[in-house]
Amino acid sequence: MIKVSIIGTGNVATHLFNAFLRSTEIEVVQVVGRSKKALLTFESQVQTTTSFTDLEDSHICIIAISDNSIKPVSELLALQNSLIVHTSGSTPMSELSKHDRHGVFYPLQTFSKSKELDFREVPVCVEASKKNDLALLKELANLVSDKVYEINTEQRKSLHLAAVFVNNFTNHLYHIGSEICKENNVPFQILAPLIQETARKIKTLSPHDAQTGPARRRDHNTLSNHLEQLKNPEYKAVYELLSKSIEETYGKEL
Amino acid sequence: MIKVSIIGTGNVATHLFNAFLRSTEIEVVQVVGRSKKALLTFESQVQTTTSFTDLEDSHICIIAISDNSIKPVSELLALQNSLIVHTSGSTPMSELSKHDRHGVFYPLQTFSKSKELDFREVPVCVEASKKNDLALLKELANLVSDKVYEINTEQRKSLHLAAVFVNNFTNHLYHIGSEICKENNVPFQILAPLIQETARKIKTLSPHDAQTGPARRRDHNTLSNHLEQLKNPEYKAVYELLSKSIEETYGKEL
Repeated sequence: MIKVSIIGTGNVATHLFNAFLRSTEIEVVQVVGRSKKALLTFESQVQTTTSFTDLEDSHICIIAISDNSIKPVSELLALQNSLIVHTSGSTPMSELSKHDRHGVFYPLQTFSKSKELDFREVPVCVEASKKNDLALLKELANLVSDKVYEINTEQRKSLHLAAVFVNNFTNHLYHIGSEICKENNVPFQILAPLIQETARKIKTLSPHDAQTGPARRRDHNTLSNHLEQLKNPEYKAVYELLSKSIEETYGKEL
Repeated sequence: MIKVSIIGTGNVATHLFNAFLRSTEIEVVQVVGRSKKALLTFESQVQTTTSFTDLEDSHICIIAISDNSIKPVSELLALQNSLIVHTSGSTPMSELSKHDRHGVFYPLQTFSKSKELDFREVPVCVEASKKNDLALLKELANLVSDKVYEINTEQRKSLHLAAVFVNNFTNHLYHIGSEICKENNVPFQILAPLIQETARKIKTLSPHDAQTGPARRRDHNTLSNHLEQLKNPEYKAVYELLSKSIEETYGKEL
């Protein structure tokens, strides 16, 4: 049985907590949060506290809070026999080096509290300062996910950066698409199957091979018609820059 | 029984042909293409020809060829009793106005010949110059798809533009993500579940509500770290512009 405590009550903390609950080989012993209200959803299932001094040793203490708070909060912890890990993609493992035994347990997914998801499909990237602790983190990760990767701080930083492109920026393009539909009285939902298929293609084709559209085929007639259609200067700039970037990517190959 | 002829042998023509074959109430009578080689895949199932003068009247003649060729090809047709339609998102219906009965049958999806897809899930946008022909196109569309929309030329132009954002540009962001992974020796497939989930979220959340990430929360520390990490000036420019656009979108709401 792996005993775990969780610091944090946000999206990542909540999804981790629910995933851990589903395993008979993991026991969540405590959840720590600053807000009594946020702790309410946990307290029927686990011991909760608002005070770090109440935190007891477990096998692994998971800090699932905002990036800027990881270091200061970790330095408040007086645990002696726990492995201390954070869950952040962009924070180096070394931010926890005040503790002899430290590591990272990074679930690479977009979490919303309101949206259920299958944690077994969530890639978990683990790193630890000591060999035994890496094994322990892998054991924990394998209990909740089928996709466990050993990833160092540098690799994790680049994964996090790539994730911003494929998630944050992609979602913003969906937003721009929905605004264009709204302005022209077309239901955005007509585009939903296209959005799903665009993502699905990546399972069998590289994005490079899946690329289509006017910029890819250098159809300058359509490109300039589209630019003329766009009234919002911000969206025009996005259209121009991404089209140029596509043209340059595939132009090199001619 | 609706009798249809198809001009074209590309992705759209092929997927339409296969969808029509599956219906017992549609008969494809002819496929016309310039290339004998491209016609080979059709000729065991339907009469094929390379000559427009061989084309016979059917109920609907579907021109599924590149945008620039639609008008010149349509003007070569000597059909008297057929409804003539094209399948293009960005081409006005009026390009076919040489023919009294004309319209548009636009399947809004990204097609690859090598990739099967469920045509019943493909939105089909129809438009016609005459009321009876609109009814005929709807009847045809309903035989192959569950998502049939009546969309005029202006609306279709804006849908096509929005599709470039959510498909072409999104796929290019996947490509940039994959390049970042490659440079740092991380398998791009770690990001695949995130890509799928980003698309899936749109089924239940608006893109606006689904937006997360450093630009959304104005985390300038992470933003400048990411910019420092990016060596490729093109990707840097994309990162800067999209982050700025996200900040402006959500900044207005503060």
